[in-house]
Amino acid sequence: MEMFVALVIFFQFLCSLSAIQGRTINSRKSGVSEKKVADVSDFFAKLIQRVSPKSYQQALGEVYVTQKFLENFCGDQVRFLARSFAVPGNHLGQQSHGFRWPYGPVTIITPFNFPLEIPLLQLMGALYMGNKPLLKVDSKVCVVMEQMLRLLHECGLPLEDVDFINSDGPTMNKILLEAKPRMTLFTGSSRVAEKLAVDLKGRVKLEDAGFDWKILGPDVHEEDYVAWVCDQDAYACSGQKCSAQSLLFMHENWSKSSLIDKLTGLAARRKLDDLTIGPVLTVTTEAMLGHMNKLLEIKGSKLLFGGEALQNHNIPAVYGAIKPTAVFIPLEEILNENNYELVTKEIFGPFQIVTEYKHNQLSLVLNVLERMHAHLTAAVVSNDPLFLQDVIGNSVNGTTYVGLRARTTGAPQNHWFGPAGDPRGAGIGTPEAIRLVWSCHREVIYDIGPLPQKWRTPQPT
Amino acid sequence: MEMFVALVIFFQFLCSLSAIQGRTINSRKSGVSEKKVADVSDFFAKLIQRVSPKSYQQALGEVYVTQKFLENFCGDQVRFLARSFAVPGNHLGQQSHGFRWPYGPVTIITPFNFPLEIPLLQLMGALYMGNKPLLKVDSKVCVVMEQMLRLLHECGLPLEDVDFINSDGPTMNKILLEAKPRMTLFTGSSRVAEKLAVDLKGRVKLEDAGFDWKILGPDVHEEDYVAWVCDQDAYACSGQKCSAQSLLFMHENWSKSSLIDKLTGLAARRKLDDLTIGPVLTVTTEAMLGHMNKLLEIKGSKLLFGGEALQNHNIPAVYGAIKPTAVFIPLEEILNENNYELVTKEIFGPFQIVTEYKHNQLSLVLNVLERMHAHLTAAVVSNDPLFLQDVIGNSVNGTTYVGLRARTTGAPQNHWFGPAGDPRGAGIGTPEAIRLVWSCHREVIYDIGPLPQKWRTPQPT
Amino acid sequence: MEMFVALVIFFQFLCSLSAIQGRTINSRKSGVSEKKVADVSDFFAKLIQRVSPKSYQQALGEVYVTQKFLENFCGDQVRFLARSFAVPGNHLGQQSHGFRWPYGPVTIITPFNFPLEIPLLQLMGALYMGNKPLLKVDSKVCVVMEQMLRLLHECGLPLEDVDFINSDGPTMNKILLEAKPRMTLFTGSSRVAEKLAVDLKGRVKLEDAGFDWKILGPDVHEEDYVAWVCDQDAYACSGQKCSAQSLLFMHENWSKSSLIDKLTGLAARRKLDDLTIGPVLTVTTEAMLGHMNKLLEIKGSKLLFGGEALQNHNIPAVYGAIKPTAVFIPLEEILNENNYELVTKEIFGPFQIVTEYKHNQLSLVLNVLERMHAHLTAAVVSNDPLFLQDVIGNSVNGTTYVGLRARTTGAPQNHWFGPAGDPRGAGIGTPEAIRLVWSCHREVIYDIGPLPQKWRTPQPT
Amino acid sequence: MEMFVALVIFFQFLCSLSAIQGRTINSRKSGVSEKKVADVSDFFAKLIQRVSPKSYQQALGEVYVTQKFLENFCGDQVRFLARSFAVPGNHLGQQSHGFRWPYGPVTIITPFNFPLEIPLLQLMGALYMGNKPLLKVDSKVCVVMEQMLRLLHECGLPLEDVDFINSDGPTMNKILLEAKPRMTLFTGSSRVAEKLAVDLKGRVKLEDAGFDWKILGPDVHEEDYVAWVCDQDAYACSGQKCSAQSLLFMHENWSKSSLIDKLTGLAARRKLDDLTIGPVLTVTTEAMLGHMNKLLEIKGSKLLFGGEALQNHNIPAVYGAIKPTAVFIPLEEILNENNYELVTKEIFGPFQIVTEYKHNQLSLVLNVLERMHAHLTAAVVSNDPLFLQDVIGNSVNGTTYVGLRARTTGAPQNHWFGPAGDPRGAGIGTPEAIRLVWSCHREVIYDIGPLPQKWRTPQPT
Repeated sequence: MEMFVALVIFFQFLCSLSAIQGRTINSRKSGVSEKKVADVSDFFAKLIQRVSPKSYQQALGEVYVTQKFLENFCGDQVRFLARSFAVPGNHLGQQSHGFRWPYGPVTIITPFNFPLEIPLLQLMGALYMGNKPLLKVDSKVCVVMEQMLRLLHECGLPLEDVDFINSDGPTMNKILLEAKPRMTLFTGSSRVAEKLAVDLKGRVKLEDAGFDWKILGPDVHEEDYVAWVCDQDAYACSGQKCSAQSLLFMHENWSKSSLIDKLTGLAARRKLDDLTIGPVLTVTTEAMLGHMNKLLEIKGSKLLFGGEALQNHNIPAVYGAIKPTAVFIPLEEILNENNYELVTKEIFGPFQIVTEYKHNQLSLVLNVLERMHAHLTAAVVSNDPLFLQDVIGNSVNGTTYVGLRARTTGAPQNHWFGPAGDPRGAGIGTPEAIRLVWSCHREVIYDIGPLPQKWRTPQPT
Repeated sequence: MEMFVALVIFFQFLCSLSAIQGRTINSRKSGVSEKKVADVSDFFAKLIQRVSPKSYQQALGEVYVTQKFLENFCGDQVRFLARSFAVPGNHLGQQSHGFRWPYGPVTIITPFNFPLEIPLLQLMGALYMGNKPLLKVDSKVCVVMEQMLRLLHECGLPLEDVDFINSDGPTMNKILLEAKPRMTLFTGSSRVAEKLAVDLKGRVKLEDAGFDWKILGPDVHEEDYVAWVCDQDAYACSGQKCSAQSLLFMHENWSKSSLIDKLTGLAARRKLDDLTIGPVLTVTTEAMLGHMNKLLEIKGSKLLFGGEALQNHNIPAVYGAIKPTAVFIPLEEILNENNYELVTKEIFGPFQIVTEYKHNQLSLVLNVLERMHAHLTAAVVSNDPLFLQDVIGNSVNGTTYVGLRARTTGAPQNHWFGPAGDPRGAGIGTPEAIRLVWSCHREVIYDIGPLPQKWRTPQPT
Repeated sequence: MEMFVALVIFFQFLCSLSAIQGRTINSRKSGVSEKKVADVSDFFAKLIQRVSPKSYQQALGEVYVTQKFLENFCGDQVRFLARSFAVPGNHLGQQSHGFRWPYGPVTIITPFNFPLEIPLLQLMGALYMGNKPLLKVDSKVCVVMEQMLRLLHECGLPLEDVDFINSDGPTMNKILLEAKPRMTLFTGSSRVAEKLAVDLKGRVKLEDAGFDWKILGPDVHEEDYVAWVCDQDAYACSGQKCSAQSLLFMHENWSKSSLIDKLTGLAARRKLDDLTIGPVLTVTTEAMLGHMNKLLEIKGSKLLFGGEALQNHNIPAVYGAIKPTAVFIPLEEILNENNYELVTKEIFGPFQIVTEYKHNQLSLVLNVLERMHAHLTAAVVSNDPLFLQDVIGNSVNGTTYVGLRARTTGAPQNHWFGPAGDPRGAGIGTPEAIRLVWSCHREVIYDIGPLPQKWRTPQPT
Repeated sequence: MEMFVALVIFFQFLCSLSAIQGRTINSRKSGVSEKKVADVSDFFAKLIQRVSPKSYQQALGEVYVTQKFLENFCGDQVRFLARSFAVPGNHLGQQSHGFRWPYGPVTIITPFNFPLEIPLLQLMGALYMGNKPLLKVDSKVCVVMEQMLRLLHECGLPLEDVDFINSDGPTMNKILLEAKPRMTLFTGSSRVAEKLAVDLKGRVKLEDAGFDWKILGPDVHEEDYVAWVCDQDAYACSGQKCSAQSLLFMHENWSKSSLIDKLTGLAARRKLDDLTIGPVLTVTTEAMLGHMNKLLEIKGSKLLFGGEALQNHNIPAVYGAIKPTAVFIPLEEILNENNYELVTKEIFGPFQIVTEYKHNQLSLVLNVLERMHAHLTAAVVSNDPLFLQDVIGNSVNGTTYVGLRARTTGAPQNHWFGPAGDPRGAGIGTPEAIRLVWSCHREVIYDIGPLPQKWRTPQPT
């Protein structure tokens, strides 16, 4: 444990001050080292940008969440994480203890879109609980964790505590089948997740993609704010977050507002220069526009904005590059079983569906949600408590934001992030997530006696 | 919830008083109804005996644990089970709530050896957390739960809350593949467990068989007591408990004691008349004796007692019927990789392996444990704290009893029972087990505002 | 512990079924014993009525809450209440355990208005945590607990576990000073509470009277419901609950509604016949009317309804007997420091103050609350989340109901009831309340070794 | 909260690295700033030494614990400390939330012996939970916290968040009586604690002195280690810790060992030069020797070592200065009611009582413990689980160390430290301690509706 503490402290020493600079600490206070810290933060943010197409602010945000996570497990917090409980037994000398116990040899497989945050948080969680992890990061972006591991080693992480592998997927799959890790954490596409679940006979925790939705409730206020959050949720990182907003339900009161105009204006601000819109790594331009065209064949559908390839760039054709795009589909058509699968197909890029519901159509909206099979993030933008109660009580998404300021993306380290409704679902970051993913329950019952006086051997049963 | 309370109360009203009779309540106190309660308890105990070969005391014990479990969720305890937590957010109006959320449609599949306790505890756990369960009990014994469901309905359980199916395994498998339950709890053989894990792509919680071990430590005391516990652990219910003692490690100090003699004497007390020894439902006599003979070919092995078929009975040949049996195998030979799999093969009957270790051979013992792949119950019979620390710290069994009075079987409802070291592992009975098996984490973040004063739309990122 | 379980079961057996009759259990189901249970419930309800002037429904409610509390600690719940935790230490063999530990000899002193619920819940809480209690109930009503103790003994409570004393206050005070109990729970008047706190040098937990308030927020809906709750909060048990509504703040929107008319009508339904209005045990008619007259001298004040002595009764003059009464005082006058103490003086009878606030006067309302010194119950009737956030964040009452259905009285056993803002504050009924009031933290640190190899005696420090 | 995080980080930045230097971080790693950190740590350790007579290692230990405490509340840990819970209600729309709520204006009064650790840990605890503290540190040593407050301000603590007062006791007492803080934490002498409890009518949490004991059990091993721990427990800081060992019970097996010889030798190593023995601030030399002489009049008593004034020093006569001293008193004479109070009188200096018990006299030992009225720390040096069970089960000390390595002093920040058995008892440092001392339970019940359909106003009750 001391090792982790040391690492945390050293990393903090390097990263903390600059990241929160301008917030509470006056810059003059920390002298020489603050420069160093800012350098390290900046180094990792730019390193992330070299391999994952996102703006500097988004990359820095990833470094910031990582840093805050490490701070959360300073001091005695790793031992507090391993807190057990005990309950009196049936007679003097008996007591049962419930422990969180490590699995032992475990594997971590993480994707391209968060090259630092996802692998580091899961790796440290595995270590905190006492496991021996083998880590594989998507090969396009693994340089980031490779650099972080060097920092960890510099801070005192014993070389033998973590195994790090660079490989393609099939090779990794073969390793898993032979090594038989006790537990494998996989973050990535649903397709690979399902394959791994079968290959590893269910010894997995999964955080796969979601088709995340947002509902705007009947109470319309703060249109500028809500529009801005929608723009960020749908198009930040070019929509390449598993929490990105894919489907927006507007109450008819919002349709009458200037929301769509505002969304159109906000989307138009995004530009390739600063990567506020950029390459899509897993879907080509053709595939995205083709999907759009199929959607536009649905009765009543229309293109709200976007729908064109980006121009004047040298993004290779194996990647996608389109403008932030929104397609309107009538609610009834989404529910039409000929369309449902098409409409709710996840496009891991800057692409969303928009629809509208009348005041008496909430049950149809809930029906759309009920039929989805992945349940990651969701948002209900309303301050009407009865409306919120209705939607929350009828949905199951793991990370659900509600209230005027609800969003689907941007989860920090201080609350659970992960899907719900699936026993294989993984969480990330919080004490609860670490305990769930990286440890199992073990019960040790102490029964030391003394024996009752005059105990005699009973009859067999 | 009220429904459960009513059920609990009614069941208690019927069952409680008689079960604890002679303990704290004077029999004269409860008048007419006590007779009724005793009748109900007796009815279920005898019903269990008709389909599952165990003594009356063992069957009554199953009814007793079931009753205690129901008492545990009286009053407001079901709502307390659904306790959530909340943590302050980043600004006024933000708060994150962590809930335990139901899966929705779930399935429960349970085995023949505990026809009442296992299905009832899992079924109620599923209901407490708000799921809609489909229950299948092994068809040989399902009459017990069929009767219990009638009692539940009589007590107020709505007819539509639980689906109950009588079928063979292949039919049930087909249903699972088509119905795609969100979660399936399976208790039974490892073979079926592994198949289900693949078929259901890991959406399972499993409590499969174990090859449970007991270690007698260096401090020898209370030989009569320890011998009696060994006899019960190995041979009660004819060894047909997933927690039954399959492998006994004796410290050399115990070898010098009269332990083996005492075990031999205790085993000899068991008789078919009162089902303290009886039919084995899943292994034939030939299979058990054949396994024994293979073991006896190992160098240094010997038969300690038993090893013969039962005589003068009309148990059909599809079942097994042997005397309580113990075979000694030298520790080194267990570790021999030619023998390891043979020796640690689970025989779901009255059959155990015994071995001995020298004081300096504890690491070999731990080595044997490390190589096992199922980790259900275990016992370490010793009051030496440093010895206990060593064995507990180097093992992973889910339910581990330690101390002079340690046992492997007879887990009550008041502590966790289940395997450890496997993310698919299920627990049964306690609040922790119910929360783990029958609910998932959901985080709802309230973010109601107000907005910061003078908020302006920021640049996109 | 078994004793409590037995008691709980027996009490349930006697009381449960009838109390929840008509809710979930069909009456035909329980046969002979249901009659018996109804008899016992009825017996205690009527016994309460003989000594404490409340309607049958109110008395039966007290029995019901008591029964539900006992159900909550069925089965293993008493041992779960004693749950401890442990955290890893600094080296192999070290672990710290945090226990809830009993005080040992403790005292319980309870008032006249809840002759069964308050003493029984506190007594059982003290016993659950392992204390040895001496119980004194107000001598006017102690016959109820005397009868309950006989039932407890019948159910198996050892005679020596509880000491029960019948005495007047001065005698009890003398006993306390000599016996020096480790902890004393006092429920009753603020005056006696403060004296006891000094006499016992702070070794007390107190639940004293409060001047409880209700705020009606800006959103007006369900007027009939809100009016009915106000009537019950202010006048049930003739206002002799420590949670009774003493001060009602109406938002101007509510003033424009028919609320006051409805309150007047509801108050007029109350009659001595069925004790929906009845004798006041600690304030005479003169004292109440005198207080009213002083209030009516305040500028802008007026009598809303009531304000007269009851007629045609034989209630002795040492008690009070007035109609349900409400006096309106302008908000500014309440804040006037010449009036503040007079207006916020608690009258333990059917008497409330009503006032009104304009939309921009919420800060004045919060100011009134801030100056109070007792903080028991409160209610904020509104579904506006920002309004609720504002009032909750600026108040400290222990049990605060918020939302459309908010009330000040009628707390059940399933949530904490007690004051906040005072380290001496006691809670009642829930697991948290019992742990706080009846146990203290004890930390036991196991540090068994082994010593580090080659340990050498260090230099002294 | 951000403020605290900033402070924590800055303090860490200054202090962390050097304090753990030589443990896990290689000194070359942190470059320029490590020097700065070591300087700050060293600055505070030497500042403590200037006002509180303890060795450099003891003073540095105080700085180290303080630093570790701050690390524990990095990141989101302050918000996690404020974690609430919620439980479902009785109908749709009802939910009860249990919060930890601040008191508001509070006071902290701390003693001379830990000028940094006690006030800082309590102050930060009060701030974490949202209180507004007024801090008074013993005027002899308050310069340490005065310097720390300047560092806190430099790190961003708003000037108005903490009030700091320098005064004598009577002035402070007057302030308390007028200011009426909601809660006062007092650490110091029992005499003042009792007075404050009365003056403040019990609105206090107390951590007063204790007469701490250690029992050596029947199993004798590691004599050098046990002797060294005894020496440190009794004489480090010249015995001026509230956790110092005041009474040592030796099992007869230990009497036969070389323990007393070893204790004598270890005590002789202590010298004024390095403050391993030094001035006693609250008891004069005469008082201590006078007390010793009275003890030596008891039948069978004898001086084991020490018992003389220190020589060749310029410690003013208002302070005490004696050699580490141990007096043997027979067990029977301790229990003699003429002697009991004398023997168990706490001497806040390098002074302990030693006694012996025969194997069958454990009940007499427990009898001695039972009669004590303060219950702070204790130690049971034994690895015999049944012996430990016996002593733990029959005692109530708040911080109890058990096992071969048990001690009475040197509590770190990672477990609770404080007395038990008293509702006024305060803890320090851990999350549990902070929640208990610096917050109270508040329950907010949301009950937002909707109303049941067709609700009608019921009859009054």
